[in-house]
Amino acid sequence: MNLKNDLILRAARGENIERYPVWLMRQAGRILPEYRAVRGSLSGFKELVETPERAAEVTVQPVDILDVDAAIIFSDILVVPEAMGLEYQLIEKKGPWFEKTVRTEEALKSIDTDFDVEDRLGYVMEAIRIASKEIDGRVPLIGFAGAPWTIFCYMTEGQGSKTFSESRKILYTNPSLAHELLNSITEVTIRYIKAQVKAGAHMVQVFDSWAGILGKEQYAEFGLKYMERIASAINEVPVTLFAKGAYNSVVELSKMDCNTIGVDWNMQMDTIRKTVGETRTLQGNLDPCALYSSHSEVERLTNNMLDSFKSKRHIVNLGHGVYPDVDPEKVKTFIKTVKSYENHY
Amino acid sequence: MNLKNDLILRAARGENIERYPVWLMRQAGRILPEYRAVRGSLSGFKELVETPERAAEVTVQPVDILDVDAAIIFSDILVVPEAMGLEYQLIEKKGPWFEKTVRTEEALKSIDTDFDVEDRLGYVMEAIRIASKEIDGRVPLIGFAGAPWTIFCYMTEGQGSKTFSESRKILYTNPSLAHELLNSITEVTIRYIKAQVKAGAHMVQVFDSWAGILGKEQYAEFGLKYMERIASAINEVPVTLFAKGAYNSVVELSKMDCNTIGVDWNMQMDTIRKTVGETRTLQGNLDPCALYSSHSEVERLTNNMLDSFKSKRHIVNLGHGVYPDVDPEKVKTFIKTVKSYENHY
Repeated sequence: MNLKNDLILRAARGENIERYPVWLMRQAGRILPEYRAVRGSLSGFKELVETPERAAEVTVQPVDILDVDAAIIFSDILVVPEAMGLEYQLIEKKGPWFEKTVRTEEALKSIDTDFDVEDRLGYVMEAIRIASKEIDGRVPLIGFAGAPWTIFCYMTEGQGSKTFSESRKILYTNPSLAHELLNSITEVTIRYIKAQVKAGAHMVQVFDSWAGILGKEQYAEFGLKYMERIASAINEVPVTLFAKGAYNSVVELSKMDCNTIGVDWNMQMDTIRKTVGETRTLQGNLDPCALYSSHSEVERLTNNMLDSFKSKRHIVNLGHGVYPDVDPEKVKTFIKTVKSYENHY
Repeated sequence: MNLKNDLILRAARGENIERYPVWLMRQAGRILPEYRAVRGSLSGFKELVETPERAAEVTVQPVDILDVDAAIIFSDILVVPEAMGLEYQLIEKKGPWFEKTVRTEEALKSIDTDFDVEDRLGYVMEAIRIASKEIDGRVPLIGFAGAPWTIFCYMTEGQGSKTFSESRKILYTNPSLAHELLNSITEVTIRYIKAQVKAGAHMVQVFDSWAGILGKEQYAEFGLKYMERIASAINEVPVTLFAKGAYNSVVELSKMDCNTIGVDWNMQMDTIRKTVGETRTLQGNLDPCALYSSHSEVERLTNNMLDSFKSKRHIVNLGHGVYPDVDPEKVKTFIKTVKSYENHY
């Protein structure tokens, strides 16, 4: 299918662009009343994730309502551990919770790796197919998965944590168990991402939300190594790697076989650019809290960020997912400001 | 009082030392069965904080049991917001919780600043006096307080958070309110630290636990500015600044009127040393999870860290507080390894 707007794909590949493309992490989500209406008509978040028609519907909403330059499939990174045998729940005000965890060889044995991803995660691919049809080439559709280290964190800790000390404990007490599990997650994730691409995803993003809790050496061994295997395996579409908080590993990330590196709001875009050069596109990084400002201040802060870009290799986004209580009108101001910006590099 | 072991004070001042001093953040706490016995005999954590005899008792325990080179007064950074009018509770498995928060000018008016710290926080100073007597000059006693930015986070968010988006929202929507509150916290904190020193603290540490959630510019404006005022105001004893996750601000921190900079376990000691040079002492930074390893592995990891030090300006510690489920015998191995290390710079 020919895309009417392929700006984000060209930006990812370092090709010429008329203006910077813009989208928001978590744009398909609670900020939109239209999303909340769909979500409210179902039993919960998981039903929404697992019902392709509805997941597709909320995927398309930001394209219609916010006028973003890309859609991202509505799903959750935790569908992968679930497909591997660890069912998850999302508990209100508490976050994800797993009944079972993998901390022993015994538990590792019960984990599935060799399954057909269309069989267990077919609902995601079906949502991609439906969303693609509804978007009808207006903008590209982004697929995604969690990075192996972040998925490992949830599978071993069993829930969110400030320190993930149960997960990190295993790196010291049983590194071979850690590598076995990371290896399994990586294999499944590659097959899962390839299936998303086959179903219609035009680019993919790998989220390493918990990259920042490891020191440089441990992140190299237990994080980057597996991220790299995914980046090398996906050649069909542009790949974005977002390793939140991995400020020690920007050089290593920039050497991977990826197109775009996600930059969180605490990182300094100009420092990252100096490190990365013009070899990769950078994505980010307005502070999500900036969207709590007045409209004129959102405009000013967005323009300030754009002024600091000295390269065409940028995809505009927040430095983290948009917060659920942000006024969608502020999001529109953010997007309009990017689209009407004139001093492009 | 003459100190029998003033190693940590000399290390902080950059004077000659026979070996590196060592202590652990949260050493007075749940890792010790002796602490849990005291804690279990009381109604809860707050009663322990507010009962000087018992707070002093658990302060001294690690000196007796672990053979550390310093004691740190057992208390909580949240006693300061409480003295200012926001009572806190510690809810099991959830963390701190405040009934009231300060998000409006109205709420700000109800906050107390001009009170006598001996009056409202006298129990901390009394605990310092009792602990000093019990330690009897064996090692120095460290006082502490939260940095204004971190205290501001709790006073505005009202609880722990992954994003502290309510706190950060105020920086955009009402920066003058933020500065007024930060200013009040800073004034109280300076008086509070000076009272701790007068009561017998030989050095003090300022904990900015949430430094890492701000970008460089916002941390300069809302964090470092107030940290610097505290550092400049305390001239009586050596000052340690621990700004966790503030990797963007190491240069700025190293220019402050402090003796020691805390280094978290994700920061690279050699990179920080290059930035800071020999002008400041560095404290840290073994990963707290390293203490889950076997004894021989704890020894190896500790020696590796010590081998990487190329300066006498080091105080050995973990890169964060010791985790509550760590075996105290592993802590002893860590301490013994530091004490028996022979290749000092």
